[in-house]
Amino acid sequence: MASMAAILSKTPFLSQPLTKPSPTSDIPFAAVSFPSKSLRRRNGSIRAGLIAPDGGKLVELIVEEPKRREKKHEAAELPRVELTTIDLQWMHVLSEGWASPLGGFMRESEFLQTLHFNSLRLDDGSVVNMSVPIVLAIDDEQKARIGESKRVALFDSDGNPVAILSDIEIYKHPKEERIARTWGTTAPGLPYVDEAITNAGNWLIGGDLEVLEPVKYNDGLDRFRLSPAELRKELEKRNADAVFAFQLRNPVHNGHALLMTDTRRRLLEMGYKNPILLLHPLGGFTKADDVPLDWRMKQHEKVLEDGVLDPETTVVSIFPSPMHYAGPTEVQWHAKARINAGANFYIVGRDPAGMGHPVEKRDLYDADHGKKVLSMAPGLERLNILPFRVAAYDKTQGKMAFFDPSRPQDFLFISGTKVIYYFPKPNPTLLKFIMVYLLIKSLMFFDFSDAHISKEQRKPARRFYVPRWMESSGGLL
Amino acid sequence: MASMAAILSKTPFLSQPLTKPSPTSDIPFAAVSFPSKSLRRRNGSIRAGLIAPDGGKLVELIVEEPKRREKKHEAAELPRVELTTIDLQWMHVLSEGWASPLGGFMRESEFLQTLHFNSLRLDDGSVVNMSVPIVLAIDDEQKARIGESKRVALFDSDGNPVAILSDIEIYKHPKEERIARTWGTTAPGLPYVDEAITNAGNWLIGGDLEVLEPVKYNDGLDRFRLSPAELRKELEKRNADAVFAFQLRNPVHNGHALLMTDTRRRLLEMGYKNPILLLHPLGGFTKADDVPLDWRMKQHEKVLEDGVLDPETTVVSIFPSPMHYAGPTEVQWHAKARINAGANFYIVGRDPAGMGHPVEKRDLYDADHGKKVLSMAPGLERLNILPFRVAAYDKTQGKMAFFDPSRPQDFLFISGTKVIYYFPKPNPTLLKFIMVYLLIKSLMFFDFSDAHISKEQRKPARRFYVPRWMESSGGLL
Repeated sequence: MASMAAILSKTPFLSQPLTKPSPTSDIPFAAVSFPSKSLRRRNGSIRAGLIAPDGGKLVELIVEEPKRREKKHEAAELPRVELTTIDLQWMHVLSEGWASPLGGFMRESEFLQTLHFNSLRLDDGSVVNMSVPIVLAIDDEQKARIGESKRVALFDSDGNPVAILSDIEIYKHPKEERIARTWGTTAPGLPYVDEAITNAGNWLIGGDLEVLEPVKYNDGLDRFRLSPAELRKELEKRNADAVFAFQLRNPVHNGHALLMTDTRRRLLEMGYKNPILLLHPLGGFTKADDVPLDWRMKQHEKVLEDGVLDPETTVVSIFPSPMHYAGPTEVQWHAKARINAGANFYIVGRDPAGMGHPVEKRDLYDADHGKKVLSMAPGLERLNILPFRVAAYDKTQGKMAFFDPSRPQDFLFISGTKVIYYFPKPNPTLLKFIMVYLLIKSLMFFDFSDAHISKEQRKPARRFYVPRWMESSGGLL
Repeated sequence: MASMAAILSKTPFLSQPLTKPSPTSDIPFAAVSFPSKSLRRRNGSIRAGLIAPDGGKLVELIVEEPKRREKKHEAAELPRVELTTIDLQWMHVLSEGWASPLGGFMRESEFLQTLHFNSLRLDDGSVVNMSVPIVLAIDDEQKARIGESKRVALFDSDGNPVAILSDIEIYKHPKEERIARTWGTTAPGLPYVDEAITNAGNWLIGGDLEVLEPVKYNDGLDRFRLSPAELRKELEKRNADAVFAFQLRNPVHNGHALLMTDTRRRLLEMGYKNPILLLHPLGGFTKADDVPLDWRMKQHEKVLEDGVLDPETTVVSIFPSPMHYAGPTEVQWHAKARINAGANFYIVGRDPAGMGHPVEKRDLYDADHGKKVLSMAPGLERLNILPFRVAAYDKTQGKMAFFDPSRPQDFLFISGTKVIYYFPKPNPTLLKFIMVYLLIKSLMFFDFSDAHISKEQRKPARRFYVPRWMESSGGLL
């Protein structure tokens, strides 16, 4: 974190257009709308200190240094379960308390509550949000090996013990039901399902998790992987009195950047003294056509280096979760995890965590459902949800303005062709790489469908045909 | 209601076996287990009066007599929406307040909360359960006809106006997502989906409902169709201090009947002075191979007439809801609606509201998920859930006893062949009808699968091959 804070930019950087710039590139592509309710919730009662973690206490599951050797010996004696890459990412998530108060891979009661209610009821009757199952699958053979044991050891693919799961519960893995209730579809081709569910075992094993050592990837990016506790420490060090989180899984573009600075300005206007942005790219599993993490991190770093975002008021860190692409269900997880890291404001865009339907020629989710579901989600009442309204070129005013649905014909919609990416000025090699990557990607996924924009809105922009993944701002979140 | 109360039986009736009687036909097939939590919740604090409806007030939506003429005139002037049979059943459900505090067909925010959270958050922050969407679908043409109108009139298939929907909201009908999230599968062949969703319109219309007249079916069974308000009145008249509801959609059998009497006995032991059974068969849409409502009602009536259940402490009434066969999701609706009718205890069996998977050779739901989900469901905390443990023939004791999973080999499982139906002694014609019906049904659906019973449990009963639908007590609930 210090590394980011230390990156101070002297010369504010002007955006470099990726494609033909729109005449309005200096005007925000999108801006946060502050619902009056959220305002009221906060007005006059701005308090110091960070939002409390879910369940009141950050649940960290990493064995303390003095006990590690002993626990490793214990692990060697237990029945073994080998973890996949995604299992390890979830173990990482659990170990640092992103899913607090969850104390390990889900037992059946937590799994069922997640599937049916997107939330968990705690012993005291309070409710925390929990929308995606964090489960560990095992096959018949592994189940047989475990036998009557109440504990198992979790191993990585190199054969190293990484954790112990105690007081275990083994229950059926109802794959079809899990998929249907999490994604709202069972269509073939969902990236996470293909990667982590279809070929997974027919059983789930839950229990209390003890992780033997902090998870490291040794990929040069571990310095960005701050745990919720580390983030809280950093945010407290900076005297943050508001923390607004921004989840993304693709490069930052013009709209994003201006949105984030605009949000800070508004929080200041609301009376917060020091709002801090948690710029929080997702670091776990993503689908093959998303921009890889290391490229994204380089881009994010440059954005700060070049002063597009102020390093003094921005913390860039990696969120270790894998990506489900489960739209309205998943966005709750993205928001909830950030509460545990200290965020009390969450910015949500169009079609968060969404993607194209794997089989039909349409987006999988209604673009507005994500923010609607998020604003109604049990256990997220404490979080201020900041949906951002889409801005468009208002032909009557000759400038960018918030889209007015009552007169769609007056607006020219921003499309992917006009989106301005911030690229590092001093690094042409990286720029070239990314441009070639994007070019290949756009050729691979060229798609004339823009069904997610209504007919009326679509017409004026019809002359620009762009790949669907570029057109949707949601896809960039 | 009075009709049932008046049916007094002088001669207790001995069960007539449908097939070869088990040597243990005089011992309950299943009995309620009273979880200690439920006991504690109640012990020492038994209060008079019925449980309050969800949201505090029963929301009845039937226009009062003096205003009906005027409303009918209004309806004639409005854009028309024609209702299907199932739409009318839901309108009936809404009109009487079974879904309180819902004030009409769902708007999008209620629909989304139902799909994602199985519950609705009210303005005061409290939560009520709502697990199945109560929505009205319209097609493109109907939508176009409605245009900018904020009100529509609902018509039955005979062209009579039946209701007005005001302050309407029209939103997309995401069929695939609705099905996946409600049923946990999108497999073809789900009865409700085939009947009411697949060919329904692509839009949903929600709003405030005013029903022009109480719904009547004129099928000779309207006297059994007590509204929640009428049931509450009847239960209060009887000075009920505990009301235990039993949902079923098939004939009562030996296990059911003894279960119900046993429950009453236990409630008396707990200190309740006058527990009343609400025997509440479902009256709306059921799948083709379920026993038709009129036959079931005749059977239920006979059960009371013959004194198997005590008419003084039993109210038989029809629950007007259509059946989803959506297992753990639907059982919440079944329970929640009964709170609105005054029930504070709900008996739940194996695989409630479940059915066979429409495509795969297995039950659609885990047989235990229904009661687990019900016991954890948001908004149902006030309801005492009474799961019943399955009883089986204990070979070591030579009698029926609660199944002990630690020694499955000792138990002979009750299967459909041994289930004892109560049939009316004095009515051989009805008996013949039902037997022929069951015979045809068993031939139609003969199935050797009994995958829902674990291998160990299955073995001893292996010599009896019975249709799956008969074997599962859950299928009878």
